[in-house]
Amino acid sequence: MSKTSAGRFFEDYRIGQVIDHAVPRSVGAGERALYHALYPARGALYSSDEFARACGLPASPVDDLVAFHIVFGKSVPDISLNAVANLGYAAGRFLRPVYPGDTLQSASEIIGLKQNSNGTSGVVYVRTRGRNQRNEVVLDYVRWVMVRKRDADAPAPDTVVPDLPQVVDPQDLVVPDGLDFTRYDFTAAGEAHRWGDYAVGERIDHVDGVTIEEAEHMLATRLWQNTAKVHFDATFRPDGKRLIYGGHVISLARALSFNGLANAQMIAAINAGAHANPCFAGDTVRAWSEVLDRAETPAPGVGALRLRLVATKGDAGILRTDEGKYHPDVLLDLDYWVFVPR
Amino acid sequence: MSKTSAGRFFEDYRIGQVIDHAVPRSVGAGERALYHALYPARGALYSSDEFARACGLPASPVDDLVAFHIVFGKSVPDISLNAVANLGYAAGRFLRPVYPGDTLQSASEIIGLKQNSNGTSGVVYVRTRGRNQRNEVVLDYVRWVMVRKRDADAPAPDTVVPDLPQVVDPQDLVVPDGLDFTRYDFTAAGEAHRWGDYAVGERIDHVDGVTIEEAEHMLATRLWQNTAKVHFDATFRPDGKRLIYGGHVISLARALSFNGLANAQMIAAINAGAHANPCFAGDTVRAWSEVLDRAETPAPGVGALRLRLVATKGDAGILRTDEGKYHPDVLLDLDYWVFVPR
Amino acid sequence: MSKTSAGRFFEDYRIGQVIDHAVPRSVGAGERALYHALYPARGALYSSDEFARACGLPASPVDDLVAFHIVFGKSVPDISLNAVANLGYAAGRFLRPVYPGDTLQSASEIIGLKQNSNGTSGVVYVRTRGRNQRNEVVLDYVRWVMVRKRDADAPAPDTVVPDLPQVVDPQDLVVPDGLDFTRYDFTAAGEAHRWGDYAVGERIDHVDGVTIEEAEHMLATRLWQNTAKVHFDATFRPDGKRLIYGGHVISLARALSFNGLANAQMIAAINAGAHANPCFAGDTVRAWSEVLDRAETPAPGVGALRLRLVATKGDAGILRTDEGKYHPDVLLDLDYWVFVPR
Repeated sequence: MSKTSAGRFFEDYRIGQVIDHAVPRSVGAGERALYHALYPARGALYSSDEFARACGLPASPVDDLVAFHIVFGKSVPDISLNAVANLGYAAGRFLRPVYPGDTLQSASEIIGLKQNSNGTSGVVYVRTRGRNQRNEVVLDYVRWVMVRKRDADAPAPDTVVPDLPQVVDPQDLVVPDGLDFTRYDFTAAGEAHRWGDYAVGERIDHVDGVTIEEAEHMLATRLWQNTAKVHFDATFRPDGKRLIYGGHVISLARALSFNGLANAQMIAAINAGAHANPCFAGDTVRAWSEVLDRAETPAPGVGALRLRLVATKGDAGILRTDEGKYHPDVLLDLDYWVFVPR
Repeated sequence: MSKTSAGRFFEDYRIGQVIDHAVPRSVGAGERALYHALYPARGALYSSDEFARACGLPASPVDDLVAFHIVFGKSVPDISLNAVANLGYAAGRFLRPVYPGDTLQSASEIIGLKQNSNGTSGVVYVRTRGRNQRNEVVLDYVRWVMVRKRDADAPAPDTVVPDLPQVVDPQDLVVPDGLDFTRYDFTAAGEAHRWGDYAVGERIDHVDGVTIEEAEHMLATRLWQNTAKVHFDATFRPDGKRLIYGGHVISLARALSFNGLANAQMIAAINAGAHANPCFAGDTVRAWSEVLDRAETPAPGVGALRLRLVATKGDAGILRTDEGKYHPDVLLDLDYWVFVPR
Repeated sequence: MSKTSAGRFFEDYRIGQVIDHAVPRSVGAGERALYHALYPARGALYSSDEFARACGLPASPVDDLVAFHIVFGKSVPDISLNAVANLGYAAGRFLRPVYPGDTLQSASEIIGLKQNSNGTSGVVYVRTRGRNQRNEVVLDYVRWVMVRKRDADAPAPDTVVPDLPQVVDPQDLVVPDGLDFTRYDFTAAGEAHRWGDYAVGERIDHVDGVTIEEAEHMLATRLWQNTAKVHFDATFRPDGKRLIYGGHVISLARALSFNGLANAQMIAAINAGAHANPCFAGDTVRAWSEVLDRAETPAPGVGALRLRLVATKGDAGILRTDEGKYHPDVLLDLDYWVFVPR
C-alpha cells in the first residue's frame, strides 16, 4: 500500500461530500510579524494593539488574509493538488477576526461539478469554511478549480453548477463584535479619507511597486502550509519557473493599496477574484483600485466600500484588452468589501 | 591582545574537558512561525496547540529540530569553527520537549580524540547537551568532526575513540510526560497510517521537492545562531558558493517526509547521520524514507519507528553507488527514531 | 482629489512644525525572532530572558535597533519620501528598552532648514522621538536629509542650522532602570573582555562577513514598515538595482561586531553616522570597530564605551582615502555609545 497521497482527481468528488482538511494551525505573534516582513502591510488596526483597542477590538487581529491563506492552504492537498487552474472565487465572507493564540482548521463541501467537454478534466466547486478552536466559523468562501481526471473514461457526473451571487449583499456583511469607528484616529491610521470621500467609479493608483524574489513567495506560501509543488520545485514546470501562489499576489496588492486606502481597514467579503495571469519572481508588482459601490452598516462609524483591486506588472488603470480579455500585464482582479470609518 | 577568537584547533582539546557554550537563547512564537516559513513542516503536533493538548501535552512544542539546531549552533564557535568536516552523529536522544518561553543553553564534553595520520588534523568526539532554564537536559547527542591543527608539530594526544552505539536502544527512548496517542485524530493529522501499518524494509518516496534559495538557508542558519563563515560569506570558498548548513537539509527532508509519514510526530532519537554530499542554493531537494525497525513503548498508544531519511538531489531510492559510496546526488542519510500512534 | 500622498517637499517644512507619523506598531516575539534570522545577532541580553533577568531587567528587550528602525521607518513617509540623501545623525539617545508587547509610535519636529545654493533642494533637520504605549520616550535622535523642492521658484526659508553635539555627553546617557552588571556571566555572554580591557584607539577586526541577498534586506526593511520605493522596486533606479536601506547595514555591522564586542550589550547613544557608500545585494559586508572613548556610569557594574563601527565591502581598518573622503568600500561609519560590564 502506498503511504503517500496522489491527491483527488475529478472523478473522486461527489456533490454534498464534506472533506475535513488536515493539520490544524495555531497562529500567533510570529505569523503576525512575518506578514509584516513579507508584505508592505501598514493597516493600523493590524499593526497596533492600541489602535485596535481604540476601535473596540480586544487586540490587534492577525491580517484577514492570514486567515484566508491558512484556510485555503489546508484545502490544497484535498482540492487542488491536481488542479490545472484556480478559476474563481465567490461568496467569501469574513465572519470573525482571528487573534494570536487561535487555532484554525478548514473543511470543504463539494457544491458543484461539471466535466469539461474534452472529458479529461472538470470543474469542481467547493465551499470552504475555516473554524477556530471554539468551532466558530471565521471565514467562508466558494472557489472553483479545474481538476484533471485520473481516468478519461470515468463517467461524467451529473452537472451541478451552484447559483453564486455576483456580489455579497452588503446586508450579509458581518461587522466584528464591538467594532466602533466613531473615535477613529485618522492621523495614526495615515490618511484623512473617510467612507464619504470615496466616489463610486473613482480610481486610485497606489503608486508603489515591489519586485518579487523567489525566497519571499516561498517563505509566504510555506507559512500557510500550502504545499502545491508548482510553487517550490523549479524542476516541476518545463520552463524551470516556480509559479507564485495567487494568494501571495492578493496580499501584496492589498498591502500596496495602503497608499490611498489606508483606512480600508478590515476585509469584509470577497465577491469575486481572478488570477488573470501567472506571476513569477522578478516581476515588479503594482496595484490600483476602483471604487465599485458603497454601503452603510449598523455598526457605529463603520461604512463599507466595495473595491476592485488590480495587481499589475504594467501601468495602473489597465485591465482588459480591446477583445475583452485580461491585459497580459494584469495579475489579479479582485472584487471585495472592506470596512472603513464613516 | 586580540579581542576576537580564532576558535579552537585540534591540539586545544583534552579528553574530559567540558565547554559551556555561549549565548543562551529564549525561543518563542517567532521561532515557531519561522520554522513553518522556512520548511514545509506540517506535523500536526507542532502546528496546533489544540492537537498537542489532545495528545496530552500542555501546548504545541517547538519543532524538535529547532531545539537540535539551537543546541548545535551554540557549539559551533567552540567545536567546529576550524572543522574540515562534520563526520557523524550518534546516541542522540530528545529527552524533553521545548516550549515557547523556554531558554536553551548548550555545553559539550570532549569524549574522544584521534589525530589523523597526516598530522595536520584530527577527529574530535563531543557529547553535546542542551538544557532549558530549569537546567533539565532537553537533548543529548554525540557528534564527531575533523578539526585542523594550528601547529602540525604539536604532539598527538593519546587516541581515545568512544564506544558508540550503532542505534539507540528503544528501551532508552524517552516518551514525553503525558504523551498519549489513544485518542489520536488521524484526520486532523493528515494520514491514516498507524505504527502497525509500517513494515520493516518498506520504502516511501515523499514525492515533493523544494528548490533552495540563498536567502532561505541563511535566514535559517542565522536563526539558530550558527555563525560558521562558510554558510554566509560568498567570498570564503574558492568557488564562490555558500555551503548550506547540513541541519538545513535535515529539517527540509524531515518536513518533506510528512507526505507518507504524517504521523511520525515526535523525534525520539538520532541514531546516526551523514551529510553525504554538500548542498548549495539552486539544488532541488527531495526525500525518501526506509523503515528500519519498530519498537513498542510503555506510553499509551505510542509506538516507535526507526527510519532512514535520505535527502537527495536526484531520484528517490538511490543511496549508494556500486562501490558502496554515497551516490553523488545523496545529501543526507539520517537514521532516527520517531514516536507514532499505534 | 488625489487619495495618495506624494510626500512632502522642501518648501513644505516649517521650523517648529511637529509631524505625528502614522501607523503605531506593536512589537513582539515575532519581531524578535525575525531579527535573529535577518542578522547574525548574538548579544546574550537580547537572546535570553534568563540572561536579561540576571542583569536586572524584567525580560529580554527587543534589540535596540529594532526600536530605532521602527521609529525611523514611521518617519519615512513624512520626512524622506522625496529625499535625495540621508546625510547624518546626531544626538541619538536610547532612553528606555522596548519589550515584546510594547506599541511604538513616532513623531518628528523640524529643527533646521537650509536651502541648497542650486535652489532645487534643501537640507531638513528633524528631531524624531519614538514613544511607547505609555507615552514614554524610548528613543530620541536628530537626522538631516536632503529633500527635493517641488517648485524651484518657491522662496528659500530663513536658514536655521541647529547646534548639534559632536558626541552625546556621557553624563546624558540613560542607563535602563535596574540594569546591574555586577553578576554578569561572561561565559554565557561569550567573551571575557570587560570595559577596562578596551583601550582608546584600539581597533578590532570582527572577522566575519555576510553576503547580502535581495530577499533579506527587503524582508527587514518591510518589517520596519519603511516603504521607500528605492529599496523594493527594481524598476525605480536607472541601473535596475535596489538600494539597501542604510539601517540594514547598521544592524548587520552591529551584529557582526559580536566577535570582539560580545559584551557591548546595550546601545546607549548614537553620536554620529554616515552611510558612506550605497550597498547592494551581492555585497559581502564585514565590520571593524575602533574604541573612541570610555566613560563610567552610576549604575552597578556598568561602563560605557564610545565606539566607531565601520561596515565595509573591503578590508578591515580602511576608512578614508588620502583626500579624506570615505574609501569606496566603506558603507557605514557609525559613532555610538554602548553599555558594557566593568
